[in-house]
Amino acid sequence: MNLFERLKVDAAPQWQDYTKHAFVEQLGSGKLPLECFKHYLVQDYLFLIQFARAYALGIYKSPAISDMRHSLEGVKAILDVELELHIEICGRWGMRREEIELASEDTPTMAYTRFVLDAGMSGDLLDLQAALAPCVLGYAEIGKRLQLAGSDVPENPYQRWIQEYAGEGYQGLADGFEAWFDTTGEQVLTTARYPRVLSLFEKACRLESDFWQMGLNATQ
Amino acid sequence: MNLFERLKVDAAPQWQDYTKHAFVEQLGSGKLPLECFKHYLVQDYLFLIQFARAYALGIYKSPAISDMRHSLEGVKAILDVELELHIEICGRWGMRREEIELASEDTPTMAYTRFVLDAGMSGDLLDLQAALAPCVLGYAEIGKRLQLAGSDVPENPYQRWIQEYAGEGYQGLADGFEAWFDTTGEQVLTTARYPRVLSLFEKACRLESDFWQMGLNATQ
Amino acid sequence: MNLFERLKVDAAPQWQDYTKHAFVEQLGSGKLPLECFKHYLVQDYLFLIQFARAYALGIYKSPAISDMRHSLEGVKAILDVELELHIEICGRWGMRREEIELASEDTPTMAYTRFVLDAGMSGDLLDLQAALAPCVLGYAEIGKRLQLAGSDVPENPYQRWIQEYAGEGYQGLADGFEAWFDTTGEQVLTTARYPRVLSLFEKACRLESDFWQMGLNATQ
Amino acid sequence: MNLFERLKVDAAPQWQDYTKHAFVEQLGSGKLPLECFKHYLVQDYLFLIQFARAYALGIYKSPAISDMRHSLEGVKAILDVELELHIEICGRWGMRREEIELASEDTPTMAYTRFVLDAGMSGDLLDLQAALAPCVLGYAEIGKRLQLAGSDVPENPYQRWIQEYAGEGYQGLADGFEAWFDTTGEQVLTTARYPRVLSLFEKACRLESDFWQMGLNATQ
Repeated sequence: MNLFERLKVDAAPQWQDYTKHAFVEQLGSGKLPLECFKHYLVQDYLFLIQFARAYALGIYKSPAISDMRHSLEGVKAILDVELELHIEICGRWGMRREEIELASEDTPTMAYTRFVLDAGMSGDLLDLQAALAPCVLGYAEIGKRLQLAGSDVPENPYQRWIQEYAGEGYQGLADGFEAWFDTTGEQVLTTARYPRVLSLFEKACRLESDFWQMGLNATQ
Repeated sequence: MNLFERLKVDAAPQWQDYTKHAFVEQLGSGKLPLECFKHYLVQDYLFLIQFARAYALGIYKSPAISDMRHSLEGVKAILDVELELHIEICGRWGMRREEIELASEDTPTMAYTRFVLDAGMSGDLLDLQAALAPCVLGYAEIGKRLQLAGSDVPENPYQRWIQEYAGEGYQGLADGFEAWFDTTGEQVLTTARYPRVLSLFEKACRLESDFWQMGLNATQ
Repeated sequence: MNLFERLKVDAAPQWQDYTKHAFVEQLGSGKLPLECFKHYLVQDYLFLIQFARAYALGIYKSPAISDMRHSLEGVKAILDVELELHIEICGRWGMRREEIELASEDTPTMAYTRFVLDAGMSGDLLDLQAALAPCVLGYAEIGKRLQLAGSDVPENPYQRWIQEYAGEGYQGLADGFEAWFDTTGEQVLTTARYPRVLSLFEKACRLESDFWQMGLNATQ
Repeated sequence: MNLFERLKVDAAPQWQDYTKHAFVEQLGSGKLPLECFKHYLVQDYLFLIQFARAYALGIYKSPAISDMRHSLEGVKAILDVELELHIEICGRWGMRREEIELASEDTPTMAYTRFVLDAGMSGDLLDLQAALAPCVLGYAEIGKRLQLAGSDVPENPYQRWIQEYAGEGYQGLADGFEAWFDTTGEQVLTTARYPRVLSLFEKACRLESDFWQMGLNATQ
C-alpha cells in the first residue's frame, strides 16, 4: 500500500462520509437541485483561489527543484485552466463572472482552505500534501466512480463536471500527486509522526464533507 | 474615532450579530444550557492554543521591539494564564484535563483560528490585528456589558466567565490592544487599503458568530 | 516619478555601488576574469532557485488574482527558462550540470536570498516587491547600459549574458514588474511607512553589491 | 549519542572552525581588540532581535503545547533579559542605547539570522532547531570552555561575557534546548532526511564563523 492507500484505510469513516456524501450521490444521479450545484460551484471558485495559494506554498516549501515543479503544475492548472473552466460552466446556468468573483466565502470554504494553508505553513511539505490529498485525490476517485456508474443516467445535467474529473487530464494530475506524496512520505515519514499526518488527512476529509453539506444546504 | 471604532460602525451588522448573539444573551441571563457552555468552553480551549500561535506570529511579523513586546503579552496571557483558567473552570463542571486536551476541533473553531493565522501570515501586522480584533476587543465589550446588566441576575452560573472578561486584567489587555491597533493603522493604513481591512474585520465577526452558534447547537 | 524611480533617487549611493560595481564594469568591457564569471554564474543558479521561492511567496501573499498571475510569471520565467539557460551558458565553459547543482551556497548568496524571503514573509506584498526590485530592475538597467556601451567591445565573451538582460523578453518582464510595484505602492504605501520600504530597498542593493564582490573575490 | 552530539561529529570541521575561531580564542585570552568586541556586541544585539523572531516562529510551528512553552522560554530570555544585558555591557564601554538600536545590520548578521528564519519557516520544527542549535549550544560550549581555561587570565576584560554563557542560567537553557532537539529528532527524523538536517547545521556553523570574522575585521 502506498501512503494514500494506507491513509484511506485508517481514515475509512471520514473518507466514506466525504466521497459518498449525499451531494456526490445526487450529482451522480443527476437529481441534485440546481441551486445546490450553483452554490457549490461559486464557492468552489473561491476555494480554488486559495488552493492556488496552497500550491504556491508548496513551491516555497520545496527543498528540491523537482518538488517545486510538481507544485508549479498545481498552480498552473488552477490559474491557467480551472478558474476559467468554472466561469464557463457557471455561464451555462446564466451566472456572470462578476457575480462569481464578488461572492463572499462561506464558513466551510474558509475552514477547509485556511486549514490547508496553515497546516502547510506550520509543518513541512508532507503536512501540506496530507492536507491537500483528500481534495486532489478524492475528486479523482469521485469523478471516476460517477463516470462508471453514469451509463444509467444518459442526460445528467452535471455530466460536464463528472467528465472533467474523470478525464485523462485530471486523472493524470492526480496520479502524479499520489506518487509524489508517496515519495515524500518515504523520505520523511516516521512511525511516531504518522498519527499527526493521519489527523491532518482526517480533518481535511471532514472539512470536505462540510463543503458538500454547504452545497446541499443551499436550498433550505 | 480610532480605527476600532470606525470598523465597528462600518461593520455594524456583523458586530451586532456577534456581540449580541443569543449565546451571549443567554450567558448574561444565566439561562444558557450547561451543555452549550461546556461545549463552548472546550472548543475555546482549543481556540486559545491557535490564538497563542497567532500572537507568536505577531512577534515574528513585528518590525519594532515595542510591537514584539505587545504580541509577547498576548502569548504569555494565553500560555501562562488563560489555558489553566479554562482547565480550572471546566473542572468545576466535572470535566477532566485529558477530556479537554484530547477533544477534536469543530469546524467553526478551525474556520476562525486558521482564518486569523492565514490573514496574518499572508498580510502584515495590521492584517493580523484586524483579524484578531473582534475576538480580543469583542470579549472585553461583552464582558463589560454583561457585568453591568448582571445586577439583576444574582446567581448566574456563568458569573466567573463574565468577571474574567469584565475584570481589570482583561480590560487592560484589551485597552492596550486597541491603542496598539490604532497606532499601527496610523502608520500603514491607506484609503485604498481600508476596504480590505474592513473585510477581514467583518469576516472575523462572522466567524465569531458561527463560534457562538456552535455552542448553542450543542444541545440539539 | 514612480515608486522605483523615487527609491533610486533616495538610495542613490547604494544604487550606484550596485549597478556600477567593478564586476559589472569588467563584464561590460569583457575584461572580467573568467574564474570570476564562472563563480558568479554558479552562485546565480543557486540564487535563482531561492528567487523562484520568493516569487511563489508572491502568489501566496497576493490578495487578488491579477497579483497572483504577476508572481506566477516570475516563477515560470525561472523554473521553465532561466535555470536551463544558466546550465547552457555554464556548459559553454565546460561546467557540467551536476557540478552546478551540487555547488554550495556562499554567504552572500544566502544573505541576499534569505533576506528577500524573510522580508516578504514577515511583511506584505509591497515589502516583498521592495526587496526583489533591485535584482529584477537593476539587471534590466545594467543589461541595457552595457548593451549600449558595448559597440566598442566587439568580441566580449560575456555578450550572451548582456543580450539576455538587454533583450526584449527580460526588459518586458522588468517593465511589468516596475508597473506592478508602482500599483501596489499606490494602494498601500503611506508616508510613515516609506522609510521602512526604502530601507528594504537599500539593504537589497547592498546585498547585491556583496554578491558581485563575491564574484570578483573568486580569483583571489 | 544524542542528535546534537551526532551532528557535531559529522560536521566536525565546521564545528571546530566556529567554536575555536580566532575571535573566540582572543576573547578567552583577553587579547581581543576592544574595537572588535564592540562591533560584535552591537551586531549581536541586532542578531538577538531576529533570534527572538525565530523563537516566536517556534511557537507558531509547534504542534504541542509543551513545544510552544520551550520556544516561549527562548523569546522571554531575549526580550525580557538578554537585550537589556547587551545594552548594559555596551554601556560599560561608553556606547549609548540609541547608537546600538540604530546601528545597521552587517551582511553576516543578515545572512545567519535570515537563514535561520527561512529554514524554520520553510521546514518544520526540527529544521528550525537544527538551524538554531549551533548558536544556542555553541555559545554554551564556548562559555564553559573559556571559563575553565580562564584561571590563567585573571583580569580578562571580557569576563562578564564569559560568565554569562558559562553561568547556570544559560547552561540550563542550553541543556533544555539540547534535550528538546533530541526529542523532536526521535519523533520525526528519518535516515533519508538526516543529510538535509546536517546541511542546515553545517551552514549555520559556517555562518557563525562568518559572524566572528566580521568582529575580527572591525579593526581593519
